[in-house]
Amino acid sequence: MSFNTFGRVFRFTTWGESHGPAIGAVVDGCPPGIVISEADIQPWLDKRRPGTSRFTTQRQEPDQVRILSGVFEGKTTGTPISLMIENVDQRSKDYSEVAQAYRPGHADYAYDAKYGFRDYRGGGRSSARETASRVAAGAVARLVIPRVEITGYVSEIGGDAIDPANFDRAQIGENPFFCPDAKAAARWEALVDAARKDGSSLGAIVECVATGVPAGWGAPLYAKLDSELAAAAMSINAVKGVEIGDGFAAARLRGEQNADPMRPGNEGLPIFLANHAGGIAGGIATGQPIKLRVAFKPTSSILIPVETITRPDDAGVSEASEIRTRGRHDPCVGIRGVPVVEAMVALVLADAMMMHRAQCG
Amino acid sequence: MSFNTFGRVFRFTTWGESHGPAIGAVVDGCPPGIVISEADIQPWLDKRRPGTSRFTTQRQEPDQVRILSGVFEGKTTGTPISLMIENVDQRSKDYSEVAQAYRPGHADYAYDAKYGFRDYRGGGRSSARETASRVAAGAVARLVIPRVEITGYVSEIGGDAIDPANFDRAQIGENPFFCPDAKAAARWEALVDAARKDGSSLGAIVECVATGVPAGWGAPLYAKLDSELAAAAMSINAVKGVEIGDGFAAARLRGEQNADPMRPGNEGLPIFLANHAGGIAGGIATGQPIKLRVAFKPTSSILIPVETITRPDDAGVSEASEIRTRGRHDPCVGIRGVPVVEAMVALVLADAMMMHRAQCG
Amino acid sequence: MSFNTFGRVFRFTTWGESHGPAIGAVVDGCPPGIVISEADIQPWLDKRRPGTSRFTTQRQEPDQVRILSGVFEGKTTGTPISLMIENVDQRSKDYSEVAQAYRPGHADYAYDAKYGFRDYRGGGRSSARETASRVAAGAVARLVIPRVEITGYVSEIGGDAIDPANFDRAQIGENPFFCPDAKAAARWEALVDAARKDGSSLGAIVECVATGVPAGWGAPLYAKLDSELAAAAMSINAVKGVEIGDGFAAARLRGEQNADPMRPGNEGLPIFLANHAGGIAGGIATGQPIKLRVAFKPTSSILIPVETITRPDDAGVSEASEIRTRGRHDPCVGIRGVPVVEAMVALVLADAMMMHRAQCG
Amino acid sequence: MSFNTFGRVFRFTTWGESHGPAIGAVVDGCPPGIVISEADIQPWLDKRRPGTSRFTTQRQEPDQVRILSGVFEGKTTGTPISLMIENVDQRSKDYSEVAQAYRPGHADYAYDAKYGFRDYRGGGRSSARETASRVAAGAVARLVIPRVEITGYVSEIGGDAIDPANFDRAQIGENPFFCPDAKAAARWEALVDAARKDGSSLGAIVECVATGVPAGWGAPLYAKLDSELAAAAMSINAVKGVEIGDGFAAARLRGEQNADPMRPGNEGLPIFLANHAGGIAGGIATGQPIKLRVAFKPTSSILIPVETITRPDDAGVSEASEIRTRGRHDPCVGIRGVPVVEAMVALVLADAMMMHRAQCG
Repeated sequence: MSFNTFGRVFRFTTWGESHGPAIGAVVDGCPPGIVISEADIQPWLDKRRPGTSRFTTQRQEPDQVRILSGVFEGKTTGTPISLMIENVDQRSKDYSEVAQAYRPGHADYAYDAKYGFRDYRGGGRSSARETASRVAAGAVARLVIPRVEITGYVSEIGGDAIDPANFDRAQIGENPFFCPDAKAAARWEALVDAARKDGSSLGAIVECVATGVPAGWGAPLYAKLDSELAAAAMSINAVKGVEIGDGFAAARLRGEQNADPMRPGNEGLPIFLANHAGGIAGGIATGQPIKLRVAFKPTSSILIPVETITRPDDAGVSEASEIRTRGRHDPCVGIRGVPVVEAMVALVLADAMMMHRAQCG
Repeated sequence: MSFNTFGRVFRFTTWGESHGPAIGAVVDGCPPGIVISEADIQPWLDKRRPGTSRFTTQRQEPDQVRILSGVFEGKTTGTPISLMIENVDQRSKDYSEVAQAYRPGHADYAYDAKYGFRDYRGGGRSSARETASRVAAGAVARLVIPRVEITGYVSEIGGDAIDPANFDRAQIGENPFFCPDAKAAARWEALVDAARKDGSSLGAIVECVATGVPAGWGAPLYAKLDSELAAAAMSINAVKGVEIGDGFAAARLRGEQNADPMRPGNEGLPIFLANHAGGIAGGIATGQPIKLRVAFKPTSSILIPVETITRPDDAGVSEASEIRTRGRHDPCVGIRGVPVVEAMVALVLADAMMMHRAQCG
Repeated sequence: MSFNTFGRVFRFTTWGESHGPAIGAVVDGCPPGIVISEADIQPWLDKRRPGTSRFTTQRQEPDQVRILSGVFEGKTTGTPISLMIENVDQRSKDYSEVAQAYRPGHADYAYDAKYGFRDYRGGGRSSARETASRVAAGAVARLVIPRVEITGYVSEIGGDAIDPANFDRAQIGENPFFCPDAKAAARWEALVDAARKDGSSLGAIVECVATGVPAGWGAPLYAKLDSELAAAAMSINAVKGVEIGDGFAAARLRGEQNADPMRPGNEGLPIFLANHAGGIAGGIATGQPIKLRVAFKPTSSILIPVETITRPDDAGVSEASEIRTRGRHDPCVGIRGVPVVEAMVALVLADAMMMHRAQCG
Repeated sequence: MSFNTFGRVFRFTTWGESHGPAIGAVVDGCPPGIVISEADIQPWLDKRRPGTSRFTTQRQEPDQVRILSGVFEGKTTGTPISLMIENVDQRSKDYSEVAQAYRPGHADYAYDAKYGFRDYRGGGRSSARETASRVAAGAVARLVIPRVEITGYVSEIGGDAIDPANFDRAQIGENPFFCPDAKAAARWEALVDAARKDGSSLGAIVECVATGVPAGWGAPLYAKLDSELAAAAMSINAVKGVEIGDGFAAARLRGEQNADPMRPGNEGLPIFLANHAGGIAGGIATGQPIKLRVAFKPTSSILIPVETITRPDDAGVSEASEIRTRGRHDPCVGIRGVPVVEAMVALVLADAMMMHRAQCG
């Protein structure tokens, strides 16, 4: 079966294909009485929107969101919030070649293997366009947990990492890469430009930090906060790896190096002397910042030809072929992944808050 | 709320604490008519069982599983399979100190923050002992997908990795580390021994490969196979990172390097020239081997003292303290993580098979 | 939490209020390759549509459905099918009185008690208008189980029942009551007219029969077919009772009277000599017709004044009041319940088929 | 698939067959800190236990419950509560005939049709024995909602109803029928005795009232309180009908007769002048008593022979046969249904409370 709903108590369901008339999300379980309008959602969509710099795809999608239900007199009513975004800049003619051959790295072959056929226009349902629906739903989630602050950024492109010593949060919004290191951002301009001119693409690493999450959110055992975050991140197009806290680096530490020692703090809360754990122990928030790292592979749509096969003909025979994915593609899909990761973190945390409140009052 | 059920169609629910009378799992949704007995489950539990070498905890848990329901005349009936393992080697006296102070890196503080108190004996519900229930459930899952072969192994301990050139699958069962590289296994003896003698611990990386998964299993969007595997792995105690295929390394590749080119093969199936994607595209299996890497942090229970705080007294005041976690602990919890990762992979794949069958016949 | 999704494998989520811009449903889990267009859905909506006779509300809702996703080249793709129906004949001015006082029998007071406020226009989310979304989703479900035939009809209005001896299926579409007994239909004209002129309303009983359901669909224990049908029926506005097979009458039979004896039939299938059970045993279909009876209370919106209270003012004080629900209401809401009950039966059975296929191949 | 879990936030999963070693339930999502021991659960099991009068089966099942997890130092910890009841009075020899022929009215044929074979001993999973697990889980649920009082009773056996004028709650525990009308109880002795001596059985109607449920519990749309109660009741063995409030009788009322008028009451709460709705409007509790009626068919196991067929032989051929269900059966299964209905009501309400708390704080 397909399964297009995420969350347990605060849930959202997305629908829509790249080249259908619209895409959208239905957010269910939202608390009542939250002040909301399209103006609370649109800025996050604008952050994700393509065509804002030469380092992202030149498609022009205004991504105007409409709230179709669940809000009355400017407040959530507790009933499902239907969010819709019309698709406006589709160029179906670009995709005729894709109908006949499988793009390596894309879901083309897998969808055909599963369903027998596929909507090949722009990747159909497997298009990263679906992530706009998540960003819209995530904007609602943010309002559910107003004291939580979620900050995503790109920490590495094509193997070139930021220098933690240069980290400046204020820089994140000042360059087209969501990069907190001004020097790295300058280097990335040349790096991404070169890849784009080569018809190639680059991978990236996105980091995300959520502060203000109180100790206690999250739950054993299969709704562990880290497990939910991993599922959320890995459900995003092009993501191939997830780390919580030190992640793989923790596997190279000794026990005493990896410990997060505690001292008594104010108001009965501990002071932690380190945060190797990324703010989660036993699946439950410790009150420290939640830290997540997400690996995006390079965009699979490239102009460099790759060996592939054609769709089987009626006799079930595929031919050897070669494909160059023309069209308007992000040279580094991880960049626009930042608002998507942030949205998924918001959605997981809103759900965790509500689950916690259900059980623990 | 707590959420102790995993899976969508093939589901299991685990229960039990480290020092209660028993632990167990209820497997629901299993197809009928599968030949099964305790003898099909016990070997996997034996593989996970502690006390089999000096490199794992010296607790003696025979971990004898009993099937309490769902099987009749040696075959699954389609009704829930209740699996129970009695706890026999509990030494509650070891844990008195833990009742009064929080062990850094453990769930002690987080559980108290969430629930107001906790079963502190051996970690209670947050003990890795729960993973025995998963291994039992995973043994059932294996029988549901008999053509899938799942192979887990340790690829790195304390930063010392195997050499892929030495990879020999037959070696995995020949050393106490589930290590496919005989030379690495020899080195690890000294490495783990030293850590154990220091009262310290080491992290590890576990890899897992599943072959025989047909193209088509898995599902968009929030039941993507990689998303389910990430959630499954990250729900295991001490896991801090998950990679599918090349994982974080993919973020350092260019698009053409990361492509998995295809050529026409036999019976309409493609031949893939690479497997950077780890056997999954768009969340759906491609028919290539599924590849997963999992990072285990070093065991948090160490004899080296760590700064901590006491449980708040009635006035809500915590004292500064120091804790050394006495008892019988794994110096490298990742080692016994191998059968657990394998079990979770089996459980995810059995569920994926059944979901695929539901929708696509 | 609110919970606007129904189903386990074949699932649908509805959204929308009576006076918002639109209502809709997202159908998830649908098998791929099913030929479908709006023309397959519209006739069922037309059957439910108000304003088709003087015995239903005179609101004019064209209820034109649009498919926004999940269909490509005329076939379902296996991805979510988003269905939208715009609201066009809203007269918000009719509802100002309702904002200030609670209509007895309606959800007004309960919604306020739960959420603190409500969208009072036309009942908001609690309006029977939502059932249009179910009818649209049900039309998709019918295509998933093409060999199942579902026939709903009204068997009783205001205590005046059909005579089983006059049952003529062909009559159901020939009168405005979905009545299979022409004589009863003639009597009901006068009966419903009189109630309408009195400003009153009448209850009704809807029956539904599904043939072609193979033995084996359904599942122990909490997804029993009868349990799912009961939940489905009782989720419909104004429904207060559900019976499977003989229902409450079975409670007055002796064991030998209630038995459904079996004789050997053709192709290994039994011949049942009776169907007291309504086609379900142990929650699983027996292959006999599935039989369901559903009780609809009289429409709560009546012109006869009823004692009520006003919304609490800022000091929390309610005043005694009286309310007459003006507007355009169904004098017997059960009549238009027929296509809704049919839709819910289709949705439950499509889900049951897919659950069966998941477990039993 | 089978689906042996019930509930959304407060969930329980049951397992076990009539003649396996044990049956049980895993309760997940329970709030922490609730004082509990086996002594809180056992009385409810004793109430359901067979063999307590000649009007119930003479099987001797002590039904001693054990808590295996989720409780520490006498309080719930928030982790899963595993409850186990060993089966002790199994007489498998009684069931040899059942292995060869299908008992009409039982799940025998349907299970074979679904799963290909079945555990025929005592009905296996379809045995009403499973309901002991629900009663145990329900006892936990009662502790979660201590201010709710749930009262079940039998209101009718074999068509002989209690006289509401004689209703005396104190009588319910004073006779073997859970009958609140002493005169009816006296008549039922003869009635049930006669049926038992005839080798026949009788149906019954169980009513259940829950007081103390605050306005606001429950949720639109597919978790409506009435929908959840209907699903819960209809999942019980032998249940064929469910009514909320006036149920089918409401279908015979006019709108003004069915209204529940309101007057201002104390503390901002309304006074309702009637309760036709059974305490639920729009799926949400109104604060009035929740009222439920449940129809139990007569026990299908009777000594009077019924026509049936044999299991198909290897060639798929069934023979005509006749079956008398020997053994120790309840002459009126509805009687012991009372504690089961109560338990299911408790479980639904505990879940509703927690869902409400999740969304509305």
